[in-house]
Amino acid sequence: MNHKQLITGLIAALLAVVGLSAPAFAEVSGETAYVLNTLLFLMCGFMVMFMAAGFAMLESGMVRSKNVATICVKNIALYSLAGLMYYLIGYDLMYGIDEGGYIGSFSLFWSPDDAAALAEEGANFDAGYAATSDWFFQMVFVATAASIVSGTVAERVKLWPFLIFVCFLTAIIYPIQGSWEWGAGWLDAQFGFSDFAGSTLVHSTGGWAALVGAIIIGARKGKYTSDGKINPMPGSSMPLATLGTFILWLGWFGFNGGSQLALGSGADAVAVANIFANTNTAAASGVVAAMIASQIMFKKVDLTMALNGAIGGLVSITAEPLAPTMGLSVIIGAIGGVLVVVSVPLLDKLKIDDVVGAIPAHLVCGIWGTLAVPLSNGDASFGGQLVGIIAIGLFVSIASAIVWTVLKFTIGVRADEEDEVMGLDRAELGMEAYPEFGSGGSQRL
Amino acid sequence: MNHKQLITGLIAALLAVVGLSAPAFAEVSGETAYVLNTLLFLMCGFMVMFMAAGFAMLESGMVRSKNVATICVKNIALYSLAGLMYYLIGYDLMYGIDEGGYIGSFSLFWSPDDAAALAEEGANFDAGYAATSDWFFQMVFVATAASIVSGTVAERVKLWPFLIFVCFLTAIIYPIQGSWEWGAGWLDAQFGFSDFAGSTLVHSTGGWAALVGAIIIGARKGKYTSDGKINPMPGSSMPLATLGTFILWLGWFGFNGGSQLALGSGADAVAVANIFANTNTAAASGVVAAMIASQIMFKKVDLTMALNGAIGGLVSITAEPLAPTMGLSVIIGAIGGVLVVVSVPLLDKLKIDDVVGAIPAHLVCGIWGTLAVPLSNGDASFGGQLVGIIAIGLFVSIASAIVWTVLKFTIGVRADEEDEVMGLDRAELGMEAYPEFGSGGSQRL
Amino acid sequence: MNHKQLITGLIAALLAVVGLSAPAFAEVSGETAYVLNTLLFLMCGFMVMFMAAGFAMLESGMVRSKNVATICVKNIALYSLAGLMYYLIGYDLMYGIDEGGYIGSFSLFWSPDDAAALAEEGANFDAGYAATSDWFFQMVFVATAASIVSGTVAERVKLWPFLIFVCFLTAIIYPIQGSWEWGAGWLDAQFGFSDFAGSTLVHSTGGWAALVGAIIIGARKGKYTSDGKINPMPGSSMPLATLGTFILWLGWFGFNGGSQLALGSGADAVAVANIFANTNTAAASGVVAAMIASQIMFKKVDLTMALNGAIGGLVSITAEPLAPTMGLSVIIGAIGGVLVVVSVPLLDKLKIDDVVGAIPAHLVCGIWGTLAVPLSNGDASFGGQLVGIIAIGLFVSIASAIVWTVLKFTIGVRADEEDEVMGLDRAELGMEAYPEFGSGGSQRL
Repeated sequence: MNHKQLITGLIAALLAVVGLSAPAFAEVSGETAYVLNTLLFLMCGFMVMFMAAGFAMLESGMVRSKNVATICVKNIALYSLAGLMYYLIGYDLMYGIDEGGYIGSFSLFWSPDDAAALAEEGANFDAGYAATSDWFFQMVFVATAASIVSGTVAERVKLWPFLIFVCFLTAIIYPIQGSWEWGAGWLDAQFGFSDFAGSTLVHSTGGWAALVGAIIIGARKGKYTSDGKINPMPGSSMPLATLGTFILWLGWFGFNGGSQLALGSGADAVAVANIFANTNTAAASGVVAAMIASQIMFKKVDLTMALNGAIGGLVSITAEPLAPTMGLSVIIGAIGGVLVVVSVPLLDKLKIDDVVGAIPAHLVCGIWGTLAVPLSNGDASFGGQLVGIIAIGLFVSIASAIVWTVLKFTIGVRADEEDEVMGLDRAELGMEAYPEFGSGGSQRL
Repeated sequence: MNHKQLITGLIAALLAVVGLSAPAFAEVSGETAYVLNTLLFLMCGFMVMFMAAGFAMLESGMVRSKNVATICVKNIALYSLAGLMYYLIGYDLMYGIDEGGYIGSFSLFWSPDDAAALAEEGANFDAGYAATSDWFFQMVFVATAASIVSGTVAERVKLWPFLIFVCFLTAIIYPIQGSWEWGAGWLDAQFGFSDFAGSTLVHSTGGWAALVGAIIIGARKGKYTSDGKINPMPGSSMPLATLGTFILWLGWFGFNGGSQLALGSGADAVAVANIFANTNTAAASGVVAAMIASQIMFKKVDLTMALNGAIGGLVSITAEPLAPTMGLSVIIGAIGGVLVVVSVPLLDKLKIDDVVGAIPAHLVCGIWGTLAVPLSNGDASFGGQLVGIIAIGLFVSIASAIVWTVLKFTIGVRADEEDEVMGLDRAELGMEAYPEFGSGGSQRL
Repeated sequence: MNHKQLITGLIAALLAVVGLSAPAFAEVSGETAYVLNTLLFLMCGFMVMFMAAGFAMLESGMVRSKNVATICVKNIALYSLAGLMYYLIGYDLMYGIDEGGYIGSFSLFWSPDDAAALAEEGANFDAGYAATSDWFFQMVFVATAASIVSGTVAERVKLWPFLIFVCFLTAIIYPIQGSWEWGAGWLDAQFGFSDFAGSTLVHSTGGWAALVGAIIIGARKGKYTSDGKINPMPGSSMPLATLGTFILWLGWFGFNGGSQLALGSGADAVAVANIFANTNTAAASGVVAAMIASQIMFKKVDLTMALNGAIGGLVSITAEPLAPTMGLSVIIGAIGGVLVVVSVPLLDKLKIDDVVGAIPAHLVCGIWGTLAVPLSNGDASFGGQLVGIIAIGLFVSIASAIVWTVLKFTIGVRADEEDEVMGLDRAELGMEAYPEFGSGGSQRL
């Protein structure tokens, strides 16, 4: 032990006697760390919030113009409802769970206790961050899960029944499965299941709810003809779809980077930086892999494949964006991009009508990303990951099926055939998204 | 008094003798706080800057395609002029005011004194933040006020006269009323008027200027027929209007969060976090309330009502985003959303033609939000709030009326009837916003 | 010497004996500075990343609708390839250079050494920031340079050859010239060349590559008729072009602000704040100057000139956004705005077909901004700046010409005439960007 260690050790020991941590010779002080941790949640939170706009633009670009205004209403409404539901019940249901438990507490109206904590004598910032900043960050995540559903079931689901489904998803279904892992429930405690930023908890959860919805609601009228043909229904605006994808990519830095949950030390800063780089690298290789795969499979590059390749790469790296080297991130993202290109025609063969390709990008790549965690993270096992994927998949699918089915046989989930042909914008909202351009799409099937 | 308090108290007392504050055992150091405060201004400032893009998209989506390029020019030009005017004269006029005063100093060319301050021996960062970071943050606010006007008077106001109005608004009108409260002038000193982030100072100010402009300029040709009918003139692109609203929502975290003016302590971090959550919650309940209200009143959901519901909720919480509980934020935002839905047809009855619905969202909800401050903030009184609303309303309305009227009787503010029918894009810019789509809208009224 | 200085001096002296820096009475601690520096890179980095979306929207709005999907593919693919190439080889080639050297190291697969550094005993954060955060920040810069090219050569360059060019630009050409200055190579060491955030290193580099490409590939079919007429080919969506410009403006705060490379002290915070204000001011005056210039020269305001005026102002201030007063920033930006308006018709006279006006905004203003550095920065000389401009201009032009020419005479760079008339979207991607609006633009020349 040298002089330096001797003296700093002595000072620390003396201070410990009176219950203080070592002075900030070169470290981050407790209060500074509290501020920086909170800042990470808020900054990454507003980036994830903006993903709501990304989904809105991606979906606006991928539906036909006769349904664009409706998809816009759905997106702003679902983001709003997610926030209200998570305040009303979701957050406590997700994080008010006993360690190793199966379900959290059903208390209403979450309310932060920061002010009380800070007002106490000798407040020492041990909580690490402002409670509300964590609420905000977790709230934007639940909105993301709901956004995934709206794209898949677009162009035929009715507005209010869809929004009721969103309420159940964000208030009950998402928080319960989330509590199993991020709330430190049974999946975390018994199986060491590992999902850093939510390949399974957010993306597959949205994907399962979307898949079950697509099956129960059925395909769009005319999408699959009786003689086995697939009728392409190209989206109305490719630049909006592209913009949406770029916004999602931007938001994903917050999604994965904020999931480090701390920026109060040099080690945290290094972690967030590595997460940013790995996230970008996986997305980039997802794009390139999807372009090459579609050039090989379809003899041409398809823009929507490139866009979904980016999302596929992003979802794939989300379960473990910290541990991989950049080289491994390239591989994980590339496989995600290829999976998207392979899965899209497969879904069509099964006559599952996914308007924006959300199931390949979010569900398939979510599973892949979760399975890839043990490649770089020694704390995770292939078996544990599989248990988590299956448990959450079963729970979300069954719960979603119940809600969709009850809606179907009560108020109905599907627009009338006539309304679907006319377009939901005129049928449900009495308006057009582009009233001056051509037919506004409303005369088309 | 325990050991810990004894020792830290002793150290603090000893240091006080030589004029130092207590060492950073667990606190944020003075320079770190200076950096964090500055960072808050810069981060929140760029978010508010992006609101200029939000307004540009919202307004582009809400006008007919024949006027889209013109509204784009107006938006980028007004943001630019606001920045130049605030540098030229506005900032000093707003903040160079004596406490309790009525008007600030008319000095030209604001210039920061940071470098000088830091170069002084023993610089101690007591200023709290870089002077220019505050200028930047305040500058993007004045641009917001100007953006509100462009939407209301769109589709018939001429380009250059509009921009001259913007110069007066951002150089003179906004700074004078702003100085009364944020510059610590008479409204703040005598009446305890409270407006945290600008429900009145920014949003109502823009709203009054817009209302007076709409009355003096008159409605669009054909909007109100002589037999009392209202001719709907639907906007050209609903997804762009939706995108604009999401961008505004995003920027509002900076608008309200940055108005805490500090991030240099744990308490500040808690405050900013609470502001983020309340801001989001009020917007979310504004959307849902507006959707329900329009379903009840008009028997259908209207996208533009949902979008303006978000803005109405945001404006409503802006006067006091810190003190309310999240539950109260739900209520404040919901009332804002309903006020929008109620006010839009009211304005039409008065034949006041507000193209984007800015007056309901920014003026009506700005008044409501300002009146709601005493519900959670004991330092504000209903009477004091009313004085502020009326004083600023009168001043901005009269000053705006003078400028609009002088413009009207000199160079004219309104496009020729022929140009209005043809569209301002071809008339004023000689171009079309969408030259390849349908008629480009130019053959329509 | 007063008491305070005596005591703090004593403490510092004692600590120095054991090799520690002074305790954080009022300073930023070493680890806190490390976190804040890293945060600046990450925050500014994601803002610059979003510029990729800005370029995509600007270019989508400025090309005709028959080429919009292709320009979207190009933009997301070039951003992806830039990131992969910079990881593969570019970063080491740029920063692995000896001081005063001419070329960096050709090592493959950059990999950060943060974890190793932090794991060392007595890690002291002397590196200043997480290595990967710097990689991320520099990576988004190289993508910007590539984005500039895609706009100029749009509507006639083939997809895959363009992407091969991007690989060479981002893996080899950009890093080599960048190493000369930012890697501390010969331009920095011998000539005191100064380019704070890349007027020359990023924007002119992109501009030269675009100019050479435009000359070698040739103008769009029908753009310049044999009788000397210029056929205007107006862009398909002005609001998307406007949105793109606003996004670029937003991202530029990160571009210039992050180039301070540190936020770990009060002085750094002041610097970043001044950079934000100067950046905004130059852009604002660029817009106003371009509008006035186009009103005078063409008797009308042109939206695309206003937009490119913003970019011209931004590029002009980029070489030195820190040292100028705000007044000088107004002048530098205004000259940039005027240069854009003057250069656009000049290029047309030379029959150089630049679809989005990238050469005036990025190359011409990049040269102007670099030459303007000595006006405020005494360390730079007019001669040294000229050497840098010429050296980089020659290198990038010659290297780009070689790559473009080899591509031209091997796989070909230009779409068939038939494909160009039909539009690249149908020819290369087999899709349309706006399949429901009018003709989708595909019947037009």
